[in-house]
Amino acid sequence: MIVEVLAVGTELLIGQIVNGNAATIGRRLAEEGHDAHHQAVVGDNVGRIAEAITIGLSRADAVIITGGLGPTQDDLTREGICLATGRPMELVQDAADRLRDRFGRLGRSMPESNLRQAERPEGAEFLPNPKGTAPGIVLRHGQRWIFALPGVPEEMEALLETEVLPRLRSGEGGVVKSKLIRTWGSSESMVAELLDDLYGSTNPSIAFLASSGEIKVRITAKASTEADANGMIEPIERSVRERLGARVFGVDQETIEAIVLALLADRGWRLAIAESATGGLIAARITSVPGSSKVFRGGAVTYATDLKATVLGVPADVMEREGVVSEATARAMAEGAAERFGAEVGVSVTGSAGPDPQEREPGTMIIGVHTPNGTQARTMRFPGDRERVRTYATTAALHLLRLGVTGVWW
Amino acid sequence: MIVEVLAVGTELLIGQIVNGNAATIGRRLAEEGHDAHHQAVVGDNVGRIAEAITIGLSRADAVIITGGLGPTQDDLTREGICLATGRPMELVQDAADRLRDRFGRLGRSMPESNLRQAERPEGAEFLPNPKGTAPGIVLRHGQRWIFALPGVPEEMEALLETEVLPRLRSGEGGVVKSKLIRTWGSSESMVAELLDDLYGSTNPSIAFLASSGEIKVRITAKASTEADANGMIEPIERSVRERLGARVFGVDQETIEAIVLALLADRGWRLAIAESATGGLIAARITSVPGSSKVFRGGAVTYATDLKATVLGVPADVMEREGVVSEATARAMAEGAAERFGAEVGVSVTGSAGPDPQEREPGTMIIGVHTPNGTQARTMRFPGDRERVRTYATTAALHLLRLGVTGVWW
Repeated sequence: MIVEVLAVGTELLIGQIVNGNAATIGRRLAEEGHDAHHQAVVGDNVGRIAEAITIGLSRADAVIITGGLGPTQDDLTREGICLATGRPMELVQDAADRLRDRFGRLGRSMPESNLRQAERPEGAEFLPNPKGTAPGIVLRHGQRWIFALPGVPEEMEALLETEVLPRLRSGEGGVVKSKLIRTWGSSESMVAELLDDLYGSTNPSIAFLASSGEIKVRITAKASTEADANGMIEPIERSVRERLGARVFGVDQETIEAIVLALLADRGWRLAIAESATGGLIAARITSVPGSSKVFRGGAVTYATDLKATVLGVPADVMEREGVVSEATARAMAEGAAERFGAEVGVSVTGSAGPDPQEREPGTMIIGVHTPNGTQARTMRFPGDRERVRTYATTAALHLLRLGVTGVWW
Repeated sequence: MIVEVLAVGTELLIGQIVNGNAATIGRRLAEEGHDAHHQAVVGDNVGRIAEAITIGLSRADAVIITGGLGPTQDDLTREGICLATGRPMELVQDAADRLRDRFGRLGRSMPESNLRQAERPEGAEFLPNPKGTAPGIVLRHGQRWIFALPGVPEEMEALLETEVLPRLRSGEGGVVKSKLIRTWGSSESMVAELLDDLYGSTNPSIAFLASSGEIKVRITAKASTEADANGMIEPIERSVRERLGARVFGVDQETIEAIVLALLADRGWRLAIAESATGGLIAARITSVPGSSKVFRGGAVTYATDLKATVLGVPADVMEREGVVSEATARAMAEGAAERFGAEVGVSVTGSAGPDPQEREPGTMIIGVHTPNGTQARTMRFPGDRERVRTYATTAALHLLRLGVTGVWW
């Protein structure tokens, strides 16, 4: 199926934001086997929105629009669809009532302008938005599809996966299946080297994606049935796992934080966290998982040095002798967190995130892990700016925690 | 001048890379006072490149093309310009000799395909590329400009600044200036309603952008000089500030975390944080600011109820009587954090992030703020899933901290 992507928003034209939505949609369309020949961007102007939709309908089977669905006067995607398709706008009373209820439950009265979000072109359906107030819209216009999705990336992605791609899939023969094998601990080029002879294959094909220090290997197969595609992926996955060993920590949408919580729960172990340079990022990742309270007891962000002693019980003479940014301090922080917060397992980070050095060169981050089997620490160096160093160190801490809990590290 | 931006490259359509070039060019065009109504992306297909150029020439004074200038068979921008303008291709002998020299100096012989980089549409000029081998191209076609720039961002930017913008400037007077007024505490529709009568104005114009509960108001003015543009923005900004009052917390790229740290530093106050449902996100935001260690002492993530008593000193009978998710507990957490972590100011969050309720309905988040002037708590309700609730509550906590520190809340 040929699909055109149209982004609406003056902020895109003047470069206040980058059009990441188009890349996300393009990637997913390619994975699903659709063809994308054009992307377009127009501002908050109803005439130009309608014109772009008309052009898209003339050369594609489906047009996916992002943005312009909010409640304000410059949100004009709904009007643009009406103008391009010659359809009147209709107010959906049910949707208006739900909006009013939603505001009511939050103890606020609804500005009248919000009623625009209960309007849609005649013949369209709403796509319920699980992550925001602006519903998406789908309209079957002749033999074409028009989809309108919110511009907020997480809302767009949710509707793309649950509402748009399944509808487009129904019109195609054959299936494309992908499986992501998630790894940590080696560079992209090292993973690529280990898998070099698998790389040339076109069906199944393999590709590499890197983010925050994790390398994902994507295996994609095209076949006439889902079972056939899965059967083609399976031997390649086995081969990838054999070569990458303990680097592989999960598949598809599994996250290291969910995996490490599950490993802890299996063992009946509880978790405490002691952070300095990562400043709460590890705890934030752990608590992003629903149900994390079954395993996670709590944590301390001991930014000031004296708090490492008073809150975590790190001996002052250890910090004096070895340094605050040292493996000895990291070990004492992990042990102290477990003891003071009533957990079997503790993970800690102390380091220098930059831009100014703190004892050690910026980018030096030391991770400690304590389990009932012992305590270890590892010094790592991360390139890049403060945010990059903190993010990579957080991911590394979660992975070393996994290796410590599963006994691979010792 | 109306300028259209066209990016060429299949890798953009399938989302392997994000179209950052379009954002860079859009931002620079806006700063220079040009109008951008459309951006487009097409793949490495000569017919579609030519068609996109033809459409661009029909509605803009200039078309800036990025990508497709390399030496390989799928670099088709030169051919696309010829097809769109009905001009033959010419080989420029000088340029061919320079390319051969360049390879010779590197001790390599030139593949014949590289000669394509010495070709240009008849009537065009080369734009020398200081950072790579592919020269840019400029063509004056009737009353229109066509520019073709390399896709590599740093090469594109160099030619944009030195060759493209000066040529466009010669035909234009004037500048465009924008100012972002950042607000928190009201919905986008409420802010829009308060500024309703300012909205109709076209120069200066105003627009709204929403993210994580913050609403930004963008004021944009076109004038013949920067001073004139600033002079036009100033009374609108004053009017926006009068109507929105304490909702306004900053301008342009200022963040609430940097602002609240500056307010604390001004007063010589230090900060401690006690988090439950936000699980470290507030501390992570605060410590994302370089130099935050001057103000931030530390924090506790007390996920387990008993740790609220042992680590923060929240009286067990208060939690028993009022509930763990209660304003009394939030106040005691903020006070306990300040006391135990040696700070004048404490901020706390206790709540139910979902999906399962914890005492209160998911989305209920209670924020406490303690300063030398007293202690307050506020119960808030946030819609959406767990991550959204946590993110919005984190932003709200930083804003209530600002209101507490500046004495607006009391």
